[in-house]
Order: sequence, then C-alpha cells, then structure tokens
Amino acid sequence: MRTRQTLRAHCAQHLDTMRAEGRYRDFARLEKIADRFPLYRWHQPGGGAPREITVWSANDYLGMGCHPAVRQAAAGAIAAYGAGAGGTRNISGTSPEHTGLEAELAAWHSKPSALLFGSGYIANQAALLALLTALPGMIVFSDAMNHASMIDGMRRSGAGRRIWRHNDLAHLEELLQEADPAAPKVIALESVYSMEGDVAPLHAVCDLAERYDAITYLDEVHAVGLYGATGAGIAERDQASGRIDIIQGTLAKGVGVVGGYIAGEADLVDYVRSTAGGLIFTTSMPPATAAAIRASIRHIQQDSALRERLAERAAALKAALDRAGLPRLPSESHIVPIPVPGAGHCRRVARQLLERHGLYVTPINYPTVPRGTERLRLCATPFHTDAMIETLMAALRDVLPVARAA
Amino acid sequence: MRTRQTLRAHCAQHLDTMRAEGRYRDFARLEKIADRFPLYRWHQPGGGAPREITVWSANDYLGMGCHPAVRQAAAGAIAAYGAGAGGTRNISGTSPEHTGLEAELAAWHSKPSALLFGSGYIANQAALLALLTALPGMIVFSDAMNHASMIDGMRRSGAGRRIWRHNDLAHLEELLQEADPAAPKVIALESVYSMEGDVAPLHAVCDLAERYDAITYLDEVHAVGLYGATGAGIAERDQASGRIDIIQGTLAKGVGVVGGYIAGEADLVDYVRSTAGGLIFTTSMPPATAAAIRASIRHIQQDSALRERLAERAAALKAALDRAGLPRLPSESHIVPIPVPGAGHCRRVARQLLERHGLYVTPINYPTVPRGTERLRLCATPFHTDAMIETLMAALRDVLPVARAA
Repeated sequence: MRTRQTLRAHCAQHLDTMRAEGRYRDFARLEKIADRFPLYRWHQPGGGAPREITVWSANDYLGMGCHPAVRQAAAGAIAAYGAGAGGTRNISGTSPEHTGLEAELAAWHSKPSALLFGSGYIANQAALLALLTALPGMIVFSDAMNHASMIDGMRRSGAGRRIWRHNDLAHLEELLQEADPAAPKVIALESVYSMEGDVAPLHAVCDLAERYDAITYLDEVHAVGLYGATGAGIAERDQASGRIDIIQGTLAKGVGVVGGYIAGEADLVDYVRSTAGGLIFTTSMPPATAAAIRASIRHIQQDSALRERLAERAAALKAALDRAGLPRLPSESHIVPIPVPGAGHCRRVARQLLERHGLYVTPINYPTVPRGTERLRLCATPFHTDAMIETLMAALRDVLPVARAA
Repeated sequence: MRTRQTLRAHCAQHLDTMRAEGRYRDFARLEKIADRFPLYRWHQPGGGAPREITVWSANDYLGMGCHPAVRQAAAGAIAAYGAGAGGTRNISGTSPEHTGLEAELAAWHSKPSALLFGSGYIANQAALLALLTALPGMIVFSDAMNHASMIDGMRRSGAGRRIWRHNDLAHLEELLQEADPAAPKVIALESVYSMEGDVAPLHAVCDLAERYDAITYLDEVHAVGLYGATGAGIAERDQASGRIDIIQGTLAKGVGVVGGYIAGEADLVDYVRSTAGGLIFTTSMPPATAAAIRASIRHIQQDSALRERLAERAAALKAALDRAGLPRLPSESHIVPIPVPGAGHCRRVARQLLERHGLYVTPINYPTVPRGTERLRLCATPFHTDAMIETLMAALRDVLPVARAA
C-alpha cells in the first residue's frame, strides 16, 4: 500500500517540522471550575493531581458561561428538551427556542432578521460564500487582519478580493477607486480585532461604502456582549448599526456558550438560510443550548455594570504592564497582546508561566498571526482581581528575561 | 446604493422561485418533550396553543438525547464546568472531557486516535480537505450518493474526483483501472446512506482499495450507535474496521447530542488536528456537551437490546407499509423512504400529515436528493409503538391519494 505509506510519511514529516519550528500544538487540558472562574484545574501531561491555576486567555470574556442564571437555564432546558436537537433545522430540528433566539438576536442588533449557525466560523464562511456568489462580478474588500473564517468564505466564493492594509482607510479608498465602478462591492471587516485588540473606524468605513456603492459586512465576534449600551457591540456603541448591512457575531465568547449568527435585512438573511449548505446539512444547535444563550443575552442586556467592570479591569491590566515596564501592543479593547517574537520562544515563555507560576496564557503563532509577530494574548475579565494582576506581573518579570536568555 | 438594491432584488427573486417550485423551506417549530419522545409539541405558524404530535423524522435514532442518564450527565457537567468551553481547542478550550471522549471514540472504533469537531459536517469537510491536499496528484473516488459535507471537502481540495455510481462496485473498479496507477488514491463512501437507507458493501470496497492501492474514508454518520456489537457502526458489524483508514461519525444522531469526529491512525489524525482551519479557528464543544456524549456512548455500548428493538421497529414499519400496499424504497436499515415525486406534491403531503393527523414527516427535495426523486423520509426508533405505526398507516392512506389528486 504505497499510498498509505506515502501519506503517513508525509503527515509524520509535517508534524516533525511543526515540532522543530515550535509550532506543534499541544492542547493543555484545563478543567473549568464554574463556581470560581477564572480558576481552572490544569491536568498535567505526566498525570498526577490536577493543579489549580488562573486562566488569562479565556474567550468567555464576561464569565457568562459560568453565570448561575445561564447554568440554571441550561439545566432546566436539558430536563425539558433533552441534550440534542435530533435533526437539521429542516428535519425536525427547529424549536421555539431557536426561533425565539433568532428574533432576539435580530432585535438586539436592530435588524429585521437573524439566523443561527453552529459556530461563528460557519456563520462567516457560509454567509460570505452565499452573499459573494449571489451576483456576478462581485468584489470583496477585506481588511488584512480579517479572521480565517471570513477568508475561508471569501476564497471559496471565487469573488474578486482586494486586501486593504489593516484599518487603513486611505488604502481602502485607493482600492475602491481602482475597481470597476459597475461591479457590485462588499466591504468586510471586524469591529474588535482578536489578535491586535484594536477597533475599526466604523463610520469612516461606512462613509466610503456609501461613496463607492458597497455594502458592509461586519464581524462583531469579539465585541458582542462587551460594548454598547445593551452589549450589542461596537456598531451599537458607535450608533452605526443602521449603516451595516450584515452583522455577524458569536455566542461562544461574550455570551459564554457556543454558536454563531448573522443579522441583517430579511430577504438577505432568508437567502442565506435557504441556500447555505453549512446550515441545511448540519444538525441544529441543541434547544437547551439556545435556551442557555437566551438567558445569557437577557442578563447581558441589562447588566451594564459588568461591561464597566470589564473596561476597568482591562485598563488596570494595561496600567500594570506599563508600570512594570513590560511590553504590550497598543489595544483599545479588553484584549491585551504582549509581543514575544519567535514561535519557540513564545511557546517556552507560556510553558514557564504555566509550570512555574500556575498562569495559563496562550502563545499565539503562525498561521493565526504572521511569523515574527508571535505574542501572548491576555484577556482581562470582570473576575480578574488586583491580586491576580500583581501575581501575573511578578510572573512575567520572572519569565520574560529568563526565557529570552534561554 | 445600486449594489444593495441589486442584491436584495436577487435574493427576493431567488426566494420567489423557490416558493414557486415548492422548494422554499419553512422550518416547522417543534418542541421536544424529553420525557415522552417521540412526542413533540408543534407550535403552529398562526400562533395558538401548541399541538401534541408524533415525530417520524427525528435523527435522534435511539432517543438517546432524551435518555435520563444523558440528561443527568449534561446537567451535572453544566453545574461543574458551565455552559461553554470559553475558547478554541488551542486557547484554553481543551478539557479532560474532550480528551477523554476522544480516547473513548478511538477505542470504540478500534483506532489509535480520534479527533472531535463541532459537527459531522465540519469533520467531513475539514478531514477530507486536509487529507486530499496532503499529497500532490491525489484522486478521490466518491460514491454518487455521498453527503454534501463530503462533497464540500472534496471539491475544496481541488483533488481529482471520480464519481462512482451509488454502491456500484463494477463502476468503481472501472474508474480505478482508468486512473494513473502512480497517483495516490482515496475511496470515500458512507456505510448507511441517509436518504436511501441502503448499506455499502464494505469488504468488497476494501478489496478494491487494496487491489488498486487506495486508502479508505468511511462516513458512519447514520450507523454510529445503531449497528455492531457495541454500536460502533457497520464497520464493526461487518468486522471491517481494520480495513478502513479513516472512520468519520456524528454525535448528533445515534448518540443523540451534537458534534462529529474522525478516527484513524495517530499521525493521520494528528495531521488533521494540526492543519484543519475549521478546528483550530473555532470554539471547542462545551465540556458539558462532551460529558453528555460520554454518558450516551457508555450506555449505547452495553445496551444491545436498544439496537435489537430499533431493528425490530424498522422491520415492523416496513412490514406495515407493505401490508397497506404503500410504496417504499428498498432499505436495509432503520431509514424508510416513501417516494412522493414532485417538490410541491411532497411538501403538500407532509403538510397534510401534520395538519390533519398530527404526524411530522420531513419532505426531502432538491438539493438533498435529485429532482423527481422527492420523498418522505421516515425513521423508526425504539420508541415508536405498534399503535403509532397503525396511526401512521391510516394517515398515509388518507393523505397520499388525496394529495395526488390535488
């Protein structure tokens, strides 16, 4: 069996290369302690008793996955509906929890309609694929830092793709000017960029969209729950929702559960619903999951103190880093990246933080960020205390120079 | 804004066409009653009190999503871990529940390694994409009835694709003979075909794979939990697991929860884990979901009476249809398709079953099956009683001729 041998050899060699470059992914086994978030139990590779640690890289930005109201809603819904949906949306897998959640998501984003997906990744992939293949000759203008899921959908569509330098309006305008004025155009961007922590200038982008006759597609994955008066995101905060055609979001980060969605004009959303293979050919989210999400969103919408506390904690983390003379990338959000160039180096620093100091921080390397821009990605949550920040500072001071010398 | 208007007009027109062809998808709102599966509450479009109905098209084939042990495990795990994972597998989103489940899935399928995905769709898409791009010049031989998710992964890979007529070994061999002997080859197939209910001849396919130096990729989505001594699927039943390179399965049907996976040789699975964007860039399944799945699989493995009951119920349903002189497609499985050609006609029949008789059966039309082969797709579960079968027969006798005359 030559094919089998050749394939296995290729896989083994690829994995060896990743190991040699420090890019091989070991997934740390972390057991969340729902009552004590952001504390987790780290199950070490060698076995032995799990060790209690503090997680600084969770995307459950508000700790809503652990909120008693969310856990209670999930448990109650599992008792009532069971653990699964039992079908695709089209084959017995649509419940009033699904349609109720979609109506609430639409209202949250001030849009007529919304559509659930199993994840934000699939939402981006499927929605962009459907939209960009709707009209012939479409051109999509994509921010250089857009997420892999958006790139996936854009690439697959075969639509013309112009990459504008990250958050660079002049470059976006230059590309819009160069394009065929008759071609239908889409501008695709994020509001908060996950690996940079910076924020897009929404109104300025929408001005260009109007001037050059483009529709707008906005990924609010790292903003939903966190920004705006009711937590609907940056578009709500900046009062720009009405200028965005499609808003995409996740239910796995600020909302703390799992799943993704799009919101927009009714026929557009219905078109995606009716044509997207990634929706029609997959089991729908368990009704109990939808119920947990609804409980989370209801809480988020009225608890603005949670958002204020998040902003305050992020500011405290940044100030502590600055006071300690530790490097950080500029960030306008709750995401705080610390540059640690070199995949092997970055991974080593993260491992030392975990092993020596009981702090979990994810090293981010290629292909998530370009080679040479590796970083630790920290997220302050409302539950990270001053004492936790001080412990982190001491650990970083210990680990960064040591690792650098290694 | 010409782009916006053109796009909206296109979407509206596409939806109108779907409506005119009877292909527009209305998702019926069905509320599962976990304690009384397969009874649901149907929430009618016009509002009013929900109506209790019997569902004949659920993919929770064994009712495991409603099993008390599964619900209890889910509720307990939500109390302990919360409702979400809080990160990708690589960013704090791997728990001992995930790795434990992966080890159990591997053992179930007698493979060294397994890898979880958010859905069976993504598992197929991501795994086939990764495997088919691993070596240059790969050719994939794909059964004509393979699922959309497999087609998606194969198409995206850009690999050469040869479609063999459904379950036609002579045609498969013909295509293998015609291909470049030096090219690395993959044969991709399902065990139980979802819309036909027939079963692939695994050993005969594996014989061809060996003769023509191809590796084998088997989708067991509609078989996992249902066939074999421990419910691992048709490969277990036929003692063919050792001849299959990659087994793909779902946790949303026989297992009754949500999610998908692949199982296979360690380096192959690790290669997919390390390279698949659909895995690395998406939030992992909630740990509580993994815990519910583990409870379900533990039960399935030892409850062979449940599988016997499923087979007996499917046989009873087929016998009742035959006695009643009602048409059905030949099926070797628990899936029983009743041909009702014409999308509008098929949809009308399904609506009458629901409205007049309180029976939910999904009409299946293009693109899930070719135009002209529309059908009702029924699945007997261990919980469908003789009385339910008799009610169904009376309803079908009422509705089929009436709808045909309409």
